[in-house]
Amino acid sequence: MIGEIIAIGDELTSGRVLNTSSRFAAGQLFAAGHEIVAMATVRDTAAAIGESLKRALQRSDFVIVTGGLGATSDDLTNEAVASALDRPATLYPEILEKIKSRLTSAGGGPAGLTLEKLAWLPAGAEILKPEARMAGYLLVHDGKPIFFLPGVPHEMRELLAERVLPRLALWAGKSIRTVQQRVYKIFGLPELDVNRRLNHLEKSDSRVRIGYYPVFPEVHLSLTVMAAEAEEAEEVFQRFSKEIEAIFSDTIYGLDDDTLEGVTGRLLAAKGLTLAVAESCSGGLVSHRITAVPGSSAYFTGGVVAYSNKLKEAFLGVDPAILKQHGAVSPACVRAMAEGIRARTGADLGLAITGIAGPTGGSDAKPVGTVFFGLATRAGIYDLACRFAGNRGQIQEMSAATALNLVRCLLLDRPIMADNNT
Amino acid sequence: MIGEIIAIGDELTSGRVLNTSSRFAAGQLFAAGHEIVAMATVRDTAAAIGESLKRALQRSDFVIVTGGLGATSDDLTNEAVASALDRPATLYPEILEKIKSRLTSAGGGPAGLTLEKLAWLPAGAEILKPEARMAGYLLVHDGKPIFFLPGVPHEMRELLAERVLPRLALWAGKSIRTVQQRVYKIFGLPELDVNRRLNHLEKSDSRVRIGYYPVFPEVHLSLTVMAAEAEEAEEVFQRFSKEIEAIFSDTIYGLDDDTLEGVTGRLLAAKGLTLAVAESCSGGLVSHRITAVPGSSAYFTGGVVAYSNKLKEAFLGVDPAILKQHGAVSPACVRAMAEGIRARTGADLGLAITGIAGPTGGSDAKPVGTVFFGLATRAGIYDLACRFAGNRGQIQEMSAATALNLVRCLLLDRPIMADNNT
Repeated sequence: MIGEIIAIGDELTSGRVLNTSSRFAAGQLFAAGHEIVAMATVRDTAAAIGESLKRALQRSDFVIVTGGLGATSDDLTNEAVASALDRPATLYPEILEKIKSRLTSAGGGPAGLTLEKLAWLPAGAEILKPEARMAGYLLVHDGKPIFFLPGVPHEMRELLAERVLPRLALWAGKSIRTVQQRVYKIFGLPELDVNRRLNHLEKSDSRVRIGYYPVFPEVHLSLTVMAAEAEEAEEVFQRFSKEIEAIFSDTIYGLDDDTLEGVTGRLLAAKGLTLAVAESCSGGLVSHRITAVPGSSAYFTGGVVAYSNKLKEAFLGVDPAILKQHGAVSPACVRAMAEGIRARTGADLGLAITGIAGPTGGSDAKPVGTVFFGLATRAGIYDLACRFAGNRGQIQEMSAATALNLVRCLLLDRPIMADNNT
Repeated sequence: MIGEIIAIGDELTSGRVLNTSSRFAAGQLFAAGHEIVAMATVRDTAAAIGESLKRALQRSDFVIVTGGLGATSDDLTNEAVASALDRPATLYPEILEKIKSRLTSAGGGPAGLTLEKLAWLPAGAEILKPEARMAGYLLVHDGKPIFFLPGVPHEMRELLAERVLPRLALWAGKSIRTVQQRVYKIFGLPELDVNRRLNHLEKSDSRVRIGYYPVFPEVHLSLTVMAAEAEEAEEVFQRFSKEIEAIFSDTIYGLDDDTLEGVTGRLLAAKGLTLAVAESCSGGLVSHRITAVPGSSAYFTGGVVAYSNKLKEAFLGVDPAILKQHGAVSPACVRAMAEGIRARTGADLGLAITGIAGPTGGSDAKPVGTVFFGLATRAGIYDLACRFAGNRGQIQEMSAATALNLVRCLLLDRPIMADNNT
């Protein structure tokens, strides 16, 4: 179906807040097979809201409206709908009850807010999730569904997934439609390669939708299957999953909400291994990503950001002769760093990164973007050389992701997947 | 004036790419005194583009269009404008010349692209910046200016600041208007405090516009002055600048494109001092932020992410008795860490952070969010205790920013500004 998304709020039109909700909704709706013809962001005025709504109803099969449903004076969505669509405000006693019982248990509401306002909805509104703090509602107007969702991102996302997508599938008319969805997280392949490898799959089955989203330095790929029956959906989903897994194999590091640091951490924890990190050009980014995961202290011993040669000697025991003969950006140095951090921390694995993040410091032999990786284990030391394109920040991001992926591939006993030439 | 922003691209309506350009433009236009009534995002179809454009012209005084100006087959903006506004495509020889000379010097263009397409613009288009790769253009229709800008964010931003804002000021009719603008970067004050302190200034002069934008964990404040004459603008700008600087004093760490790590780095470089960092709960984020700045190796010696007690002893020489008696999250430990990293790296300043980022590990005496900071100098050791609210990621962000700010305040010989209770 053809749809439109309307986000409401002065904080958006003044540029104070970045609108991520509309993008999220667009991605989900697109993945579910709908076409989003336009996304609008409008101010908190009843006139602007009403106008956008009427306009959207003219050209679209459905509309999603986010924001402006709260209890403060600038929340005008219900008022705008009541007037623009001629749906007088109506008291919903079940919502009033819910508000009153919540106020009693919480010992009173915020001063100056008339929370009762939340219980007055446009006539004909169907509550989407009565038990939620912000319940959302559905209005059918001119035979078209309009979904009103809260502006708070996590509340919006929840209602969208739980209530809106299934209702839209129903609306689209193919009996009770089943939607199966999965996101594959890929690292080590440029976007163009991902695209090229998918060419033959993309249009091969009308029940299947494949989308890909570059999220530097990764590419995320979504597989969505829609079918009339659960069994049919399951069969198609399994078939396409297998195809995608065969095509991308070890460059798929995880699914859905997985992160490279989370997956690598789970592998370490499962094997009862500990990791320590010695970073030069990545400047602490690898440690930062690892420790962003709750519970990482179980497998992360710690790290050294050995930015200067002196620290490479003092903290990692790198032989000054190596630095003199090969330089700090060399396979010999990165191997010594990896072995050094492993020995000095007593960790099972020692990971090291050294390179030239730029913008200065490059040479003909070792241009900006040259990065060496080392991984010391009980069995021996692996090393890897890469050359990355991009600015300083991008080279640091690529370095950190490649380092985490190196550990992941080693733990899975798989060949190292590294996109050396982006 | 009342304006509208239209962003064009299937990559936006499918949710693949987050639209940051419209938000940036909205912020700039708002700061320059305009009201953005709506922001629209539309697909790459001539019909959708044309419809949005006509609609925007009905209700707004000016329109900004971004994207769809390139040479590929899905760049349809010019085509849509030609048909929707009845402005037949016209060859602009000066652009054709530019393309040809660029192709010659670069040795041919990308295969399959007819770059000549870039030289065909809607009749009446005025080129905004002839020397730029993507020159942009202005069309006046029904007496209203429509600015067409490239979708690539940095090209859009440049044209917006250099060409669009001054032209719009002219259009607004107050002879040659001067616009002066500055962004103050604030750390250490919650958004509500910033707002409250500005109350009396906000509406005090019609030539002045003050906006504030929370960018966690900072708050950014923009001051915009618009006047008929340069001298008048300068006078008002100076007066308000002084007021703002008096109100926020040392919580203002920088202006415009400054970052906390960049400002702190410049101070270190100017004083010829070096810094080393020992991190526990911030997990490498401080080192990462410092090394994100090009040239930071001049003043950043390196760091240790001493996540385990063992590493605090081995790498920083923290006395096991301190860990046993006070615990790793204590003023005594953070002081020992700061002194340890200073002594072992030979840096002038040793910065240390230890705390509980959560979600687990808290106690009644030291709940999640408890973070201690230490800064060792030749003259002695400073320490600071904070309690931050938020999730693990927010506590790590607050910790890193507070640590950088601690160094900044010390180098400026000013009292430490820390927002302990957000």
